[in-house]
Amino acid sequence: MRIVALAGGIGGARFLRGLLAAVGPQDEITVIGNTGDDIHLYGLKVCPDLDTVMYTLGGGIHEEQGWGRADETWSIKAEMKEYGVGPEWFGLGDRDFATHLVRSQMLTAGYSLSQVTEALCVRWNPGVRLLPMSDDRVETHVRITDEQGTRAVHFQEYWVRLHAAVDAEAIIPVGADTAKPAPGVLEALAEADVILFPPSNPVVSIGTILAVPGIREAVAAAPAPVVGLSPIIGGAPVRGMADKVLAVVGVEATAEAVALNYGSDLIDGWLVDTADEGAVAAVEAAGIACRAVPLLMTDVEATAEMARAALALAEQVRK
Amino acid sequence: MRIVALAGGIGGARFLRGLLAAVGPQDEITVIGNTGDDIHLYGLKVCPDLDTVMYTLGGGIHEEQGWGRADETWSIKAEMKEYGVGPEWFGLGDRDFATHLVRSQMLTAGYSLSQVTEALCVRWNPGVRLLPMSDDRVETHVRITDEQGTRAVHFQEYWVRLHAAVDAEAIIPVGADTAKPAPGVLEALAEADVILFPPSNPVVSIGTILAVPGIREAVAAAPAPVVGLSPIIGGAPVRGMADKVLAVVGVEATAEAVALNYGSDLIDGWLVDTADEGAVAAVEAAGIACRAVPLLMTDVEATAEMARAALALAEQVRK
Repeated sequence: MRIVALAGGIGGARFLRGLLAAVGPQDEITVIGNTGDDIHLYGLKVCPDLDTVMYTLGGGIHEEQGWGRADETWSIKAEMKEYGVGPEWFGLGDRDFATHLVRSQMLTAGYSLSQVTEALCVRWNPGVRLLPMSDDRVETHVRITDEQGTRAVHFQEYWVRLHAAVDAEAIIPVGADTAKPAPGVLEALAEADVILFPPSNPVVSIGTILAVPGIREAVAAAPAPVVGLSPIIGGAPVRGMADKVLAVVGVEATAEAVALNYGSDLIDGWLVDTADEGAVAAVEAAGIACRAVPLLMTDVEATAEMARAALALAEQVRK
Repeated sequence: MRIVALAGGIGGARFLRGLLAAVGPQDEITVIGNTGDDIHLYGLKVCPDLDTVMYTLGGGIHEEQGWGRADETWSIKAEMKEYGVGPEWFGLGDRDFATHLVRSQMLTAGYSLSQVTEALCVRWNPGVRLLPMSDDRVETHVRITDEQGTRAVHFQEYWVRLHAAVDAEAIIPVGADTAKPAPGVLEALAEADVILFPPSNPVVSIGTILAVPGIREAVAAAPAPVVGLSPIIGGAPVRGMADKVLAVVGVEATAEAVALNYGSDLIDGWLVDTADEGAVAAVEAAGIACRAVPLLMTDVEATAEMARAALALAEQVRK
């Protein structure tokens, strides 16, 4: 079976680990990774979501933290502080830096982000084919108003430095309108047997991927059933601050509202947590098959069970 | 007193530390640093000699090793090995990487190497004004013949990877012929009260600095006395492999031959080690004042004593 999953960072990566545990060796998983939170730091190209997927599936992730490398050292960060060179609010460990150095050197040499990602994955052997959503530069910016006035800040600054504590007024995926899907993305969607939306952020992860012209259309047109998993449980994001960015696009932070926002033209099935069983009827009324199952990714087995439920629902809605 | 010193890496840096201990707070030291062994690694600009001077005088050097940072960590090197990205033979620690990241980011932003060096020195506060010999790219290459045939390799590859074990056939400071002295270099030489050649490598350190058009002429024309210290003691370099590269330019590895190679049009005074007392007469016969004093930089005080001897000789030869 050919499974295609759209994925953001931590939540997406953890779901993919469960998915890998749920499928067999004959199944092929292609991951279309969000690159909207990529950022240039110290002259290097940093791709937090791609790296989180790569490190998580490749066994190099810092488990408790969910991002960055295990057994990390922080010498460069300490040195940057001594040099007075920022940003101080973004944590890049030494091991992580190596990835950005290799990536940046390859990009400068003329390789595309897809090619670089494939090269990095030779080492990490993540068990999936990891494709960036686009080889073109897309950077999500967030419009805010604070004591410095109204301005757009990089998503990472909003998320990591400001902890989303300032109201977001708009989410702007700069460059997305002219970006092209990376090689293989549209083909993977067209040839998929199942398409999954992991419980990633519906606005700044899945939403950004869908904002690349051609990808939303390819998902909608794909013959494969499309099944998503709610990142919202009991009216709050399981992890992260999805509610903050959902508000900007006028979507309530509920399992039901997120499903309806994707809409039945995009998704065929939707999993909500058992805590949100009350949402099932409303989602189904909108033409989206819905089941309530436990959605807490407490460990790999619990996550694999979620993946199995998603694949089972996909079979039920297959035309 | 305005003192100008030309300097390579480890030997030059250690001499400068002694010089700083020998002079008073009213004395101003300008160091013209060799950049011929600069190398681009992982997309970053690495300036080994400038950094060795900066770290040594700024208290950040790895004392036993003579190069690189104290309390260094090596996470990036380990990661590069996992990625299969070389060169493995060049050791860049994590703290050291931070310097190259800051430098490279500033160079990419359009600052000159002089400006970047000045900025880095704000942190290190080396107690001298450190100028690169040139803001233009100069890279010393070495022509060798081995099982791969006759070819030119970067000086660092010759020195660090091959340990100078293959005969050097030519030393080629690529780019030196069109390089311009960095801002301040010629002015410092013209206004100097004393010019010193520390016991740095006469070919690939001092020689490369002198190969930048205008610098040799400015040293020769300077009203200040020029005094050098022999890097050769008893027919062998105190440190490093100066004999290997002296052979290429047809100069014997003796304290006397190095002095005569500089010549009386360039230097006015020369210090040899007490072990080379026999060379004094021949050097003086060539029109260069010569004294034999202990030249082993065993500690800062012994080195300061060498600096005092050099300054004293400068006074004796002052016209």
